[in-house]
Amino acid sequence: MSVAKRLLVLHGPNLNLLGRREPEVYGTTTLAEIDQRLQELAQAHGFEVICAQSNHEGELVDLIQRYGWEVAGIILNPGALTHYSIALRDAVAAVPAPVVEVHLSNIHAREPFRHRSVIAPVAVGQICGFGPMSYELALIYLVRRAEGAIG
Amino acid sequence: MSVAKRLLVLHGPNLNLLGRREPEVYGTTTLAEIDQRLQELAQAHGFEVICAQSNHEGELVDLIQRYGWEVAGIILNPGALTHYSIALRDAVAAVPAPVVEVHLSNIHAREPFRHRSVIAPVAVGQICGFGPMSYELALIYLVRRAEGAIG
Amino acid sequence: MSVAKRLLVLHGPNLNLLGRREPEVYGTTTLAEIDQRLQELAQAHGFEVICAQSNHEGELVDLIQRYGWEVAGIILNPGALTHYSIALRDAVAAVPAPVVEVHLSNIHAREPFRHRSVIAPVAVGQICGFGPMSYELALIYLVRRAEGAIG
Amino acid sequence: MSVAKRLLVLHGPNLNLLGRREPEVYGTTTLAEIDQRLQELAQAHGFEVICAQSNHEGELVDLIQRYGWEVAGIILNPGALTHYSIALRDAVAAVPAPVVEVHLSNIHAREPFRHRSVIAPVAVGQICGFGPMSYELALIYLVRRAEGAIG
Amino acid sequence: MSVAKRLLVLHGPNLNLLGRREPEVYGTTTLAEIDQRLQELAQAHGFEVICAQSNHEGELVDLIQRYGWEVAGIILNPGALTHYSIALRDAVAAVPAPVVEVHLSNIHAREPFRHRSVIAPVAVGQICGFGPMSYELALIYLVRRAEGAIG
Amino acid sequence: MSVAKRLLVLHGPNLNLLGRREPEVYGTTTLAEIDQRLQELAQAHGFEVICAQSNHEGELVDLIQRYGWEVAGIILNPGALTHYSIALRDAVAAVPAPVVEVHLSNIHAREPFRHRSVIAPVAVGQICGFGPMSYELALIYLVRRAEGAIG
Amino acid sequence: MSVAKRLLVLHGPNLNLLGRREPEVYGTTTLAEIDQRLQELAQAHGFEVICAQSNHEGELVDLIQRYGWEVAGIILNPGALTHYSIALRDAVAAVPAPVVEVHLSNIHAREPFRHRSVIAPVAVGQICGFGPMSYELALIYLVRRAEGAIG
Amino acid sequence: MSVAKRLLVLHGPNLNLLGRREPEVYGTTTLAEIDQRLQELAQAHGFEVICAQSNHEGELVDLIQRYGWEVAGIILNPGALTHYSIALRDAVAAVPAPVVEVHLSNIHAREPFRHRSVIAPVAVGQICGFGPMSYELALIYLVRRAEGAIG
Amino acid sequence: MSVAKRLLVLHGPNLNLLGRREPEVYGTTTLAEIDQRLQELAQAHGFEVICAQSNHEGELVDLIQRYGWEVAGIILNPGALTHYSIALRDAVAAVPAPVVEVHLSNIHAREPFRHRSVIAPVAVGQICGFGPMSYELALIYLVRRAEGAIG
Amino acid sequence: MSVAKRLLVLHGPNLNLLGRREPEVYGTTTLAEIDQRLQELAQAHGFEVICAQSNHEGELVDLIQRYGWEVAGIILNPGALTHYSIALRDAVAAVPAPVVEVHLSNIHAREPFRHRSVIAPVAVGQICGFGPMSYELALIYLVRRAEGAIG
Amino acid sequence: MSVAKRLLVLHGPNLNLLGRREPEVYGTTTLAEIDQRLQELAQAHGFEVICAQSNHEGELVDLIQRYGWEVAGIILNPGALTHYSIALRDAVAAVPAPVVEVHLSNIHAREPFRHRSVIAPVAVGQICGFGPMSYELALIYLVRRAEGAIG
Amino acid sequence: MSVAKRLLVLHGPNLNLLGRREPEVYGTTTLAEIDQRLQELAQAHGFEVICAQSNHEGELVDLIQRYGWEVAGIILNPGALTHYSIALRDAVAAVPAPVVEVHLSNIHAREPFRHRSVIAPVAVGQICGFGPMSYELALIYLVRRAEGAIG
Repeated sequence: MSVAKRLLVLHGPNLNLLGRREPEVYGTTTLAEIDQRLQELAQAHGFEVICAQSNHEGELVDLIQRYGWEVAGIILNPGALTHYSIALRDAVAAVPAPVVEVHLSNIHAREPFRHRSVIAPVAVGQICGFGPMSYELALIYLVRRAEGAIG
Repeated sequence: MSVAKRLLVLHGPNLNLLGRREPEVYGTTTLAEIDQRLQELAQAHGFEVICAQSNHEGELVDLIQRYGWEVAGIILNPGALTHYSIALRDAVAAVPAPVVEVHLSNIHAREPFRHRSVIAPVAVGQICGFGPMSYELALIYLVRRAEGAIG
Repeated sequence: MSVAKRLLVLHGPNLNLLGRREPEVYGTTTLAEIDQRLQELAQAHGFEVICAQSNHEGELVDLIQRYGWEVAGIILNPGALTHYSIALRDAVAAVPAPVVEVHLSNIHAREPFRHRSVIAPVAVGQICGFGPMSYELALIYLVRRAEGAIG
Repeated sequence: MSVAKRLLVLHGPNLNLLGRREPEVYGTTTLAEIDQRLQELAQAHGFEVICAQSNHEGELVDLIQRYGWEVAGIILNPGALTHYSIALRDAVAAVPAPVVEVHLSNIHAREPFRHRSVIAPVAVGQICGFGPMSYELALIYLVRRAEGAIG
Repeated sequence: MSVAKRLLVLHGPNLNLLGRREPEVYGTTTLAEIDQRLQELAQAHGFEVICAQSNHEGELVDLIQRYGWEVAGIILNPGALTHYSIALRDAVAAVPAPVVEVHLSNIHAREPFRHRSVIAPVAVGQICGFGPMSYELALIYLVRRAEGAIG
Repeated sequence: MSVAKRLLVLHGPNLNLLGRREPEVYGTTTLAEIDQRLQELAQAHGFEVICAQSNHEGELVDLIQRYGWEVAGIILNPGALTHYSIALRDAVAAVPAPVVEVHLSNIHAREPFRHRSVIAPVAVGQICGFGPMSYELALIYLVRRAEGAIG
Repeated sequence: MSVAKRLLVLHGPNLNLLGRREPEVYGTTTLAEIDQRLQELAQAHGFEVICAQSNHEGELVDLIQRYGWEVAGIILNPGALTHYSIALRDAVAAVPAPVVEVHLSNIHAREPFRHRSVIAPVAVGQICGFGPMSYELALIYLVRRAEGAIG
Repeated sequence: MSVAKRLLVLHGPNLNLLGRREPEVYGTTTLAEIDQRLQELAQAHGFEVICAQSNHEGELVDLIQRYGWEVAGIILNPGALTHYSIALRDAVAAVPAPVVEVHLSNIHAREPFRHRSVIAPVAVGQICGFGPMSYELALIYLVRRAEGAIG
Repeated sequence: MSVAKRLLVLHGPNLNLLGRREPEVYGTTTLAEIDQRLQELAQAHGFEVICAQSNHEGELVDLIQRYGWEVAGIILNPGALTHYSIALRDAVAAVPAPVVEVHLSNIHAREPFRHRSVIAPVAVGQICGFGPMSYELALIYLVRRAEGAIG
Repeated sequence: MSVAKRLLVLHGPNLNLLGRREPEVYGTTTLAEIDQRLQELAQAHGFEVICAQSNHEGELVDLIQRYGWEVAGIILNPGALTHYSIALRDAVAAVPAPVVEVHLSNIHAREPFRHRSVIAPVAVGQICGFGPMSYELALIYLVRRAEGAIG
Repeated sequence: MSVAKRLLVLHGPNLNLLGRREPEVYGTTTLAEIDQRLQELAQAHGFEVICAQSNHEGELVDLIQRYGWEVAGIILNPGALTHYSIALRDAVAAVPAPVVEVHLSNIHAREPFRHRSVIAPVAVGQICGFGPMSYELALIYLVRRAEGAIG
Repeated sequence: MSVAKRLLVLHGPNLNLLGRREPEVYGTTTLAEIDQRLQELAQAHGFEVICAQSNHEGELVDLIQRYGWEVAGIILNPGALTHYSIALRDAVAAVPAPVVEVHLSNIHAREPFRHRSVIAPVAVGQICGFGPMSYELALIYLVRRAEGAIG
């Protein structure tokens, strides 16, 4: 499989608790179910997805550095790091792969400190508020972009 | 055609200039082309879209009020009104139809005053940075939601 | 009927939805009912009220300009425009008629951005939090003032 | 006289100087005249008013605590305490009686530090700018509310 | 008359009241007199001016869009919209015609909220404080520029 | 009983309403019950507690001044004064007795204006969020400190 | 003794502790010694001083109201109230007697929250940083003023 | 030993240096001594404590996730992470175990950036300023809570 | 030549480098050329201009003081001093000559710290963004004003 | 004459205009009159004063450096430099002579930017609002201090 | 080799990408080349350098703790952590080794959020903007300091 | 000696007091000693240094303008002007010579207003905290750069 047909999906801190943590905010779907769904959706377009979750800022930076020159795009849910991890921002800015920032919840409708993303300014764009579909919409975009349908 | 199979697409101030205005920021696609593409995409799922553009805050409020009880969802690109029109926000909050806020450009990567949306807190979510595909992703979400695939 | 016996009642954006929009915030009374009640209350004092609603900032400015030299007072619920429409503020400041700013809800008990009124500094005063009675109290004041009972 | 037919009128610091202090801001009516007028107005509706003034934050808190379970409503002009007395705010929030905040002058048209009320968010509403009539309008509201004419 | 010999003069909200509104701030000259004077001044240089006033943000945006590709320059007094209408700003930024922002009064000497212009950053420059001559100076500049005397 | 075996417990404004005021925030225990419990706890360690409550900032300052040279420690719940009474802060800083600031509720989880304490910087420490146990923990600390178990 | 030959000296919260409280900041002179020195200095000019201290904001307001129409001037050290007591400010603004604000320490060299005085804007002037001489300089000024040596 | 009889004690970055680092701020007790003392105190009540320290935000999140469903309570000293680790905050909010935030020093008496805790709003409460006793007081609270003595 | 027929032109710090410094911002015209052009323009109206440049705030203040009672107007480009020299502001406010603030570049389109002018509030008005023509427009205004054509 | 019997009086920018500039703010006394009065007052105590005025920040710094080791005290009215000249502040902090900051007007009652002094934190104290007497009070203090009457 | 002849060089997040990441900002030199150059420079002075890079905040804290008592100095380029890692700051403050903060780029010339360093206040000093030479200058300083040439 | 072999060393306000002023902050070395040391260090590399100190912002600007086209580099310690002199900043930005900003003390570890440099954004870089060595490190950099060893 050629590099151009792979996508990286990265989940930040506490997303491993999905389905178990504050379901009224984050829903009942588990992370495994989301990854599974993305895998299927990608395969339908001839793509493969690599999924990873970490509670460690450093590991997320390591992963972006490792795959950032190899994949056709990165779907990044930085979790709480969205709001302060300039290290993650710098990693996103450093790699050539296009990065789409996603959030399950509508961060603009939550506590004020969650409105600001230090990462969004260096991402291609941001999708938030659609639950697990936030990831799927990002995947649709990146596949279309990789296929050359977008400038 | 039943009400549940209609979507409203609303474009705010200056979006009628699309293709003609600052193409390095907004691209060369025209608004008519975007509307045409959305129409086709919707029809493929058995939906119809009603498209409108206005440079008048009051007209956009009128349109949200008129269709907000009749359509399965609203795709709203508030343009510059994103950043100050609390009247538009109140209209969005007042109607039962789910509203998705979209932007062609990544507003978080532009001037600081464009980072804040007064409308996002009352929308379902926000999609920005994907050019015309921002609208299409919103449409995919609303169709899926209307079809009951999403809680 | 002499000019001094007429009052203007102006309702801003989204107030036409009254009774239909967020009843837990705004109550179930409709705008027509409020206007009707004000009409009766005014007539009991020998006054007439002219009522108008608009979602358009420009129309509200036009109306204030048109009636501002003819009526004994203006009851203005600027709705969301309260918080940013300096144009409306300038219109209020420009006309000789005394303007009373009213709100159905207690704006000081809502989101922080609703606490500040750009219009209040040029109005005679502000009445908020009493539901439809906010309008009635304003009317009582303006009638009394017009009758010369107030300096 | 039943409890439901009594109202408390509380005047904060320096309001005892009314008529004597900065008449260009506060007018020439004295506090005794205001209290007298409120008494008459209340009696016309079968109500009694208890009036008190204090320059002491603690005494105002004591009075709200003492009458807050006994009266049909409180008309509170907190004077300068409006802008910083969280103790007064907490007292207002603690008692079941509905509290209406009133001001003689339009606080929104004065120095910036007078625009913010720490008490308004826990009051029913705020009436300001109408001179002694601010009190009268509040009384009209509370009487109507006590008479069950209001939800 | 060729396009290059036409200028657009746009007056924002409440400027139609000129001569009638707060003459101590805005002077006693009427808008018609200003337009007349600009017409004469332009004609002396072989130019024509199109003058318009509106209290509607949307109409001002419409007019800039309509004439922005046809005239040699635009003289814009945005009135109160100066301070918050990003929609107007975007229209100014979108058209090729050079725009000069003018104000009758010295906005930097008035209330703090009038010091900031959201439009100035995308205009050629700003002229304020010279009464009706603010417009005339702008016209002199635009004529000179159109005549090629300025880079 | 020697001075070193006495503690002062001071309750600020509105704490006399405990059990009666907003029980969902402050619980159902009354102040008398808290004082009783502290008395017993102190006696078990051979200490005596002096308890006082006041809605008057000045009285609280008076009490701190009166006992601040005589007791082994002060447990101070400043209530609303926590957030603005620099006079109370200065009294705490002036006396040799160690002062522990306590709160029934977790002030950091409430309105933003309750997050900041002007008194904490001059207290030994702060304990908040544990209901009546906040007082008890403070007492345990002061007793231990008085017994010389702490530097 | 005529009214014009009396001065009021008011000391705010915690100043009764002078000589006992933080001597490295406030020095070792007691309040009684300061009052004594002011008495002598005043008598040398044929004046009398009335001295009072209170930890209660309300009492200070009462005293200013009581003497503000009778004395030739007021020397006010508001202590911690300097920074937040708008009630005290309003009392100062309400009375005809000229008020000089004094501080023992240089408040501009201490914590940031002590730099701002809410009272200074309505006082004649402010003297701070000279220890007990701050009071004496104020007295010299007020005596000279009362003697008509100053406009 | 049943789950309900275990507590987790978590120490954040640089706390392993205790006794060695800035003893004038943090004292001379070592972390091992604190852990030993907590172990003894817990055992006296029939509880067990699990102690851990890490300089890695991610490890602290991992530990909270691992034990957050198993222990009767968590004593968390987040060290420097207190002030910015929203990831830690989200972990605390996600688990059912009650979390008490503790600090050796009085963070409100140190540099301004140490006054704010991003974690406190989702903890049960905060205890700071009592040196090693801060931990002990937290333990006493959690044991009492676990024993059902607290609602 | 009478006093009323003279104007002062003052250039602030670094303007002597004009034509040599950052030509993409400030253009290639030299200061001598600007002065020459203004001289000619003035003479055409029977006026004389005195031109001076200094990098010293104090010298600019001296010059304003020296000529401020003698000339018919001052054209002041304060350069970098625009943004912080309150001394220059006070000089402008002190003299009777009308002062017009000019800038070659559009300061509102540059770094945020260049948007604010501490001098503009005491000038007649501000002209910026028109290159050397900014000065010429100011001269036209001052000549017209001196000739009595303007109030 | 010994060094200890000399004082330096420094007047900052625009104070040379005294009596001529904004007399409603600064009075009609000239600087020469103030200097003369100070000279006489000093001589009465056996002191000499050296008076200087400059519009140049650098010259004021030079003078403070030159006399700061030779005089018994400095009376400094920094004029507009009060609010931004950290260079002047550093000079004041560098020399051993005690410096008293004085102002003719009450700077706390003027524009907000005049409330803050960057120099006061390193001066002995500040005296403002007493017109020319501000200088005299400072002189009385410095003479008394030099005579050893003050610590 | 004695401890006093070793230096630690620490590179923070994303610096491993040097030469590969945004070369227009960070240059084309790789991290290995920088380390090699520092090794040579150190050896010329008889010193050894230990070099390490990590994307993990926790690992950087661990390394500072491990070497902070053993080396003659630490050269720390905290990368993005410069701006928020108080944990790193606390580690720097805790160890006896002098720490020099270095940056390749001039952080003061980049985005506003990069201007502030939370680490600099506890470092010896900061060197930024000189590319790889920033490290070399730091090394020269630390060697000189270790050799006792500096107090 | 060719131009490329000369460096300018500029010291701002109060640096002439070095060794005499606050030695605990600035050390005991005099400015003459620093200049002497720089001269020697430069000569060792075949360079000459021109040293100047001034308390006058304008003179510093003049010197930068005079030498900015002639020297191989400028070492600038702006002293207090660092924090507000935009005029100095503009001079630095205007000349082709590379400018290195230096400070003896670590400005980031001092008062908050000393953290911000308005000059650093237009300098090559900043070196602070190393006492007189800050200058030497800057010299080493500029010599190396001039010798072509740096891009």
